[in-house]
Amino acid sequence: MNKQLLMRRYEVLGKSAPLFYDEPLELVRGEGVWVYDASGRRFLDTYNNVPHVGHCHPHVVAALTAQASTFNSHTRYLHENIVGYVERLTAKFADSLSMAMLTCTGSEANELALRMARQHTGAQGIIVTSCAYHGNTEAVAELGTAFMPEARTTQRVLAFPPPCSYRIPVGASADSLADFYAAEVAKAVATFSQRGLGVAGILICPEFANEGLVMEPPGFIEKAVDCVRAAGGLYIADEVQGGFGRTGEHWWSHQHAGVIPDIVTLGKPMGNGHPLAGVVARADLIEAFGDWGMYFNTFAGNPVSCAVGNAVLDVLEQEDLLSNAVTVGHYIAERLDALQAKYSIIGDVRHKGLFFGVELVSDQDSKQPASVSAMRVVNEMCRKGVLISRIGLHDNVLKMRPPMSFTHEHADILLETLDHCLADL
Amino acid sequence: MNKQLLMRRYEVLGKSAPLFYDEPLELVRGEGVWVYDASGRRFLDTYNNVPHVGHCHPHVVAALTAQASTFNSHTRYLHENIVGYVERLTAKFADSLSMAMLTCTGSEANELALRMARQHTGAQGIIVTSCAYHGNTEAVAELGTAFMPEARTTQRVLAFPPPCSYRIPVGASADSLADFYAAEVAKAVATFSQRGLGVAGILICPEFANEGLVMEPPGFIEKAVDCVRAAGGLYIADEVQGGFGRTGEHWWSHQHAGVIPDIVTLGKPMGNGHPLAGVVARADLIEAFGDWGMYFNTFAGNPVSCAVGNAVLDVLEQEDLLSNAVTVGHYIAERLDALQAKYSIIGDVRHKGLFFGVELVSDQDSKQPASVSAMRVVNEMCRKGVLISRIGLHDNVLKMRPPMSFTHEHADILLETLDHCLADL
Repeated sequence: MNKQLLMRRYEVLGKSAPLFYDEPLELVRGEGVWVYDASGRRFLDTYNNVPHVGHCHPHVVAALTAQASTFNSHTRYLHENIVGYVERLTAKFADSLSMAMLTCTGSEANELALRMARQHTGAQGIIVTSCAYHGNTEAVAELGTAFMPEARTTQRVLAFPPPCSYRIPVGASADSLADFYAAEVAKAVATFSQRGLGVAGILICPEFANEGLVMEPPGFIEKAVDCVRAAGGLYIADEVQGGFGRTGEHWWSHQHAGVIPDIVTLGKPMGNGHPLAGVVARADLIEAFGDWGMYFNTFAGNPVSCAVGNAVLDVLEQEDLLSNAVTVGHYIAERLDALQAKYSIIGDVRHKGLFFGVELVSDQDSKQPASVSAMRVVNEMCRKGVLISRIGLHDNVLKMRPPMSFTHEHADILLETLDHCLADL
Repeated sequence: MNKQLLMRRYEVLGKSAPLFYDEPLELVRGEGVWVYDASGRRFLDTYNNVPHVGHCHPHVVAALTAQASTFNSHTRYLHENIVGYVERLTAKFADSLSMAMLTCTGSEANELALRMARQHTGAQGIIVTSCAYHGNTEAVAELGTAFMPEARTTQRVLAFPPPCSYRIPVGASADSLADFYAAEVAKAVATFSQRGLGVAGILICPEFANEGLVMEPPGFIEKAVDCVRAAGGLYIADEVQGGFGRTGEHWWSHQHAGVIPDIVTLGKPMGNGHPLAGVVARADLIEAFGDWGMYFNTFAGNPVSCAVGNAVLDVLEQEDLLSNAVTVGHYIAERLDALQAKYSIIGDVRHKGLFFGVELVSDQDSKQPASVSAMRVVNEMCRKGVLISRIGLHDNVLKMRPPMSFTHEHADILLETLDHCLADL
């Protein structure tokens, strides 16, 4: 480890600026699914969904360079790039989601969604899960009921438990789980009504990524959204992690449940690492928001960012990466199931496309979270050259989310390394 | 004008997405201080402080391309670029401002500053001017007392009138103006105390850019900050418009008043158009904030953004652009003074470095704002090939803020065109 660089970092960024792994990596080069440290050692990146079509994809870099050499400016001039990009982007959504506003980050996108929902409904209450993370601004930090300080004092956010089919809550039964969780959402609606705040909307990541990629009991999202809509609120789908084909089959993770949101927020994979994010929403919501207050974002939607966004769509389509996510995703899931049969510490294997959650438990019956083991596996995987992370209410769910160009050969490296790490526990 | 593109834009971005000028420009190429429309016509860009060292500066584009081709990732790995960049950046501030947190936008930087100030002080109240704009997230929109909807209902923001030396408010006299405005700040402190909110800080753009580049009565900032600090609050300087040498002589516009802030926010010019912004602050504030809550920003501080930030500093230093801002700034100011002698509609000429405010009034004595004339001048300048804008409480202050590489020859074009437009009024 480069201790000198770490000490210098502490001096200017502080000791709390987060770093991955026991021994932080110094990465200096990336190509496809591989990243390289300063000594030239390579690591398989199965964590990072930001370099969505692969690190330093030449088509994306070429688009970035060409536009940055030609013109970059804000969106108060006309430019083909933003119009063409947003046309292409919104065409990938249901007809009702026909307009967009671009931002630079997922936090800004969720800020905009909250402002828009509260303006439209005249209500304040937002319903999230109790393991949500949607970004780092104050209004968005209020949603982070798991650990963000602002969430501890706000009155206008209420959380329900992640709608998990693996851990059955006390008082619930396996065959009526969707109703059980929907009733929790209904309680939040009622509480907001008692508080005089009303309900502005429900904001969820439709694949419940931070919740540990829990699998919703079928029908839950429909029931929850129906309840919120009946009270006048909107359905906001946070696709910052699940969007752009990550979950395979569909472009957007909300499509799995078949409920069309009113507002969708986008981020991480959108620009393959370039700061590009945004909101896709019903046209009436965007028009009304624009009439209510001026929104302008200096950098967002600039010609360079939109060239990059277009290039990411090019690669996803030309390299048929959604199909790849389905094929390789199924292959990995089958192999993970086989590991589950071999290692009793694996309590549950969940996946959608190229997004995997492997829940570690110390006992299959009690489902006691094996959080320390999960931490050990993550660090051991890193030492053996494979980057993964962990997530969930108990930080005991191994999280894997490789670039969309991940192949069967890469999968074999991931799975063999995971096999070794689990054997060594 | 490209009406077809405008119609397509309306369809996907909505009619409220802001555009400049009566007849919106379609710009397709930029080089130095020049931008070119789709027909090949060139315009002198004297408005845009985002392409700070000039549109598409080859050194900046080369740095962007080289790093984007090599590696881009978040800041949870060690990387020389962010550490080296922040070392270099903080070295340009007073010793007490020794740490930084990077963001993607000025809004995110101001969000962070507000969260940090409120966490540190345990108080909620923020004092701003009544013509402030600091960004587009909810908590930051609350500061936009001039026109942002959230500002109308918040209790935790209070505004004082812009500390202008040109328009003497009723009840004030020219020789005690600093005390008059400082008393307004003291009133806000007292009101927050009555509300039980306390004062977290005063947040100002030290050159009062949105206020029309008003010149503070000497000593005002010191008096105001003393008052806020005596009540336990912090001084937050928003350098999103005034930073990186824009005002000449100093790197930061807060240096003109000689009062060192507790927190400084940076944005627009920082990455020459690439989404790069941040907070520079006292180390104890950043450490305490990091202990309080987790802050992580997926895109901010990535190796590409930091390479771009470094390249901008390279150009500012190598091309000696701060000296240029002083020299060319004085030249333009003298010529604007001459125009004031010629045209009675010019009530006041204000400048710092390469930032100019020309206040138009219909009468020199009553100082009645000539807002409609200002709008006409802005649009006529555009038709004649020079891009400027207008600002201030009454939208009657011509705002000019060209790239830092602006020369005497460019200045002559600007001034001759302005002369013609004023003559035609």
